[in-house]
Amino acid sequence: MTLVVQKFGGTSVADPERMRAVADHVARCIRRGTQVVLVISAMGKETDELLFMAEQVSSKRPGREMDMLITAGERKACALMCMALADAGVEAQSFTGSQAGFLTDTNHRNAKILEITPDRVVDALSKNIVPVVAGSQGVSTERDVTFLGRGGSDTTAVALAHTLEADLCELYTDVSGVFTTDPRVVSVATKMQSITFDELLEMTATGCPKPAMRSVEVAHNYQVPLHIRSAFTWEPGTLVVQEEPDMEQPIIRAVTHDLSESKITVSEVEDRPGVSAKLFRYLADGGINVDMIVQNVSDQGCTDISFTVPTEDLEAATEIISGPNLADLGSKGVSTDQAIGRVSIVGAGMKSNPGVAATMFETLADNGINIEMISTSAIRVSCVVEASRAEDAVQALHTAFGLDAA
Amino acid sequence: MTLVVQKFGGTSVADPERMRAVADHVARCIRRGTQVVLVISAMGKETDELLFMAEQVSSKRPGREMDMLITAGERKACALMCMALADAGVEAQSFTGSQAGFLTDTNHRNAKILEITPDRVVDALSKNIVPVVAGSQGVSTERDVTFLGRGGSDTTAVALAHTLEADLCELYTDVSGVFTTDPRVVSVATKMQSITFDELLEMTATGCPKPAMRSVEVAHNYQVPLHIRSAFTWEPGTLVVQEEPDMEQPIIRAVTHDLSESKITVSEVEDRPGVSAKLFRYLADGGINVDMIVQNVSDQGCTDISFTVPTEDLEAATEIISGPNLADLGSKGVSTDQAIGRVSIVGAGMKSNPGVAATMFETLADNGINIEMISTSAIRVSCVVEASRAEDAVQALHTAFGLDAA
Repeated sequence: MTLVVQKFGGTSVADPERMRAVADHVARCIRRGTQVVLVISAMGKETDELLFMAEQVSSKRPGREMDMLITAGERKACALMCMALADAGVEAQSFTGSQAGFLTDTNHRNAKILEITPDRVVDALSKNIVPVVAGSQGVSTERDVTFLGRGGSDTTAVALAHTLEADLCELYTDVSGVFTTDPRVVSVATKMQSITFDELLEMTATGCPKPAMRSVEVAHNYQVPLHIRSAFTWEPGTLVVQEEPDMEQPIIRAVTHDLSESKITVSEVEDRPGVSAKLFRYLADGGINVDMIVQNVSDQGCTDISFTVPTEDLEAATEIISGPNLADLGSKGVSTDQAIGRVSIVGAGMKSNPGVAATMFETLADNGINIEMISTSAIRVSCVVEASRAEDAVQALHTAFGLDAA
Repeated sequence: MTLVVQKFGGTSVADPERMRAVADHVARCIRRGTQVVLVISAMGKETDELLFMAEQVSSKRPGREMDMLITAGERKACALMCMALADAGVEAQSFTGSQAGFLTDTNHRNAKILEITPDRVVDALSKNIVPVVAGSQGVSTERDVTFLGRGGSDTTAVALAHTLEADLCELYTDVSGVFTTDPRVVSVATKMQSITFDELLEMTATGCPKPAMRSVEVAHNYQVPLHIRSAFTWEPGTLVVQEEPDMEQPIIRAVTHDLSESKITVSEVEDRPGVSAKLFRYLADGGINVDMIVQNVSDQGCTDISFTVPTEDLEAATEIISGPNLADLGSKGVSTDQAIGRVSIVGAGMKSNPGVAATMFETLADNGINIEMISTSAIRVSCVVEASRAEDAVQALHTAFGLDAA
């Protein structure tokens, strides 16, 4: 019998009507002979609402208590889903992260799974009871409730699928799959039937909204087949596979963009070993997640280092690189730019196709779009451009790489 | 050092401002050298909102899932309270029912506590961390989350106070204590400084709104001193004691009324042994909680049996006493009356004062109020009257028994 882990959350379970639609879908799957394990995350915007309430109650919000608070959202959603399933004629039982056997470290707000011992989930399955597992939560080695972080329900689903040796992990969302680019920006964007893990990882790292990157990494590491699909149209979505079997695949699979970062440039840093290491150690100690890093060509013993950070961390980052720290780097000053956009092309095919980056740069130049920073991986090229030109860049690249729907 | 269990819930913790007010109060208690254990129930009307949501999601609401759903409310409130305490400079840790060691039976929606092993609570206290325990919940012998029922947080507080050998259990509410009658009905009602458990039990059984009757029974059985007081004015409230030390106490302590029940009369039942037993067995099997029972004088081998049930159970009860069941009782028919009110006088002093019941009946007669049913205990007399006259009856009795404030 086929065993499928299905994950639903957010808009997919935002209200009673959506809950019943999901329950009907699960009932249909079971009638077709599929064994189903559900992973449910909080309804609609509930997690945001709980965070907002905590801010109103207190300026001090200990991680242990934040996790106790936020995980309540998933518990509610799981219990309600079991009731909706009961109405649809499906026997179901909810399990908290702890009950489902998710042991985590003690790193509150962003705990990591150490081990899963899903005895109760397995026991329910053996009795033809659908287990409904609360997403993004577990119990720590200190016996406290832990939260796996935003998007952690995808990780719960993938990790559980691996542990149960499920045939497939389906991540249901409000879009119908993974597209060649954002369909809001490029109307001729097309849905991909399949994509490799490497490609999806590059896409989630560069602005593709779903699924959570950490879950894709876990799925990749443990070779859990993923299906990213819609909880609204129920049509087949995009399969995520280890390797792309189709030899006729295009060189570039997708164009992504991201407007959520800002650029920081540290000017005229001394060009000697250890200086950039020092800079990024300061930032890491301050909890700043640095993304693209570009060090310009050295000019007379000095160099400029530019990098991007999430715009929400911009203030904290510039605070860190000031005063004694700035002096320690021997720098003359720091400049920032919030009006940037990152545009990326992604595709495993570029590995064996030289000239892809050149085509990208030419396309941008032909459209009068200036490139401020460049970074590359084996299957991705990213350019930082003016924020106001980012969507133009996406449209031009989508056409240039032959991705527009016929 | 004095150890006090303090319970807050509902309106007392309805919003961030109330949370902070409670946290400030706890901080003050600690500064005065009191050790505090908090028991918190859901904020404002949250439990009602969760019940309403469940009704919208499903017509089938398994008890196990309802408990998972409803207990989320207490978890949220506990976590937020810990954050408010952190802001007030008090280190605190939240504990779910399971974490606080509340083992219960498997009777979902209305579980009974089997055992409390509060190791983590004791451990927190020993480190000067205020334990904040989620009210009305536990973990069953089947390892499922259980809910102790509405008002169960009072029971959690009292049972925990007993287990911890606390010096006092304070139940904070939105009224300033126990009154001689409902102050909304009788403006000259007075707050009692103290009351005996027996009296309070009779009062909670006959319409006094707070605290939950089950918690008073537990406190009575285990001799846990209670203090019922206001979370808004913070003034001293009403102490609940084992025996009334004041010999000058009035004969009658309080007048209560209750409009939430309906009367059912089963007419012309055969007057032979076992018939009424059969009737109430049918009702008990149907889960109907019968309150007052009056069997009228037999007339030519037949008798009328009247009893009251919560109005919400009226339809179910009349359904049970119909068709074959009614025939089995040999009855000619069933009549119901929703427009009834029960008025009660309560006081340990009446045990040694004959004539109290007669005074009550005379007072009602003098005011033209007809008595439909009567039931008595050693320290209480209750009369069922027309609902529209219930408040008149309360006012007249409050005056007649000398309870009006000077």
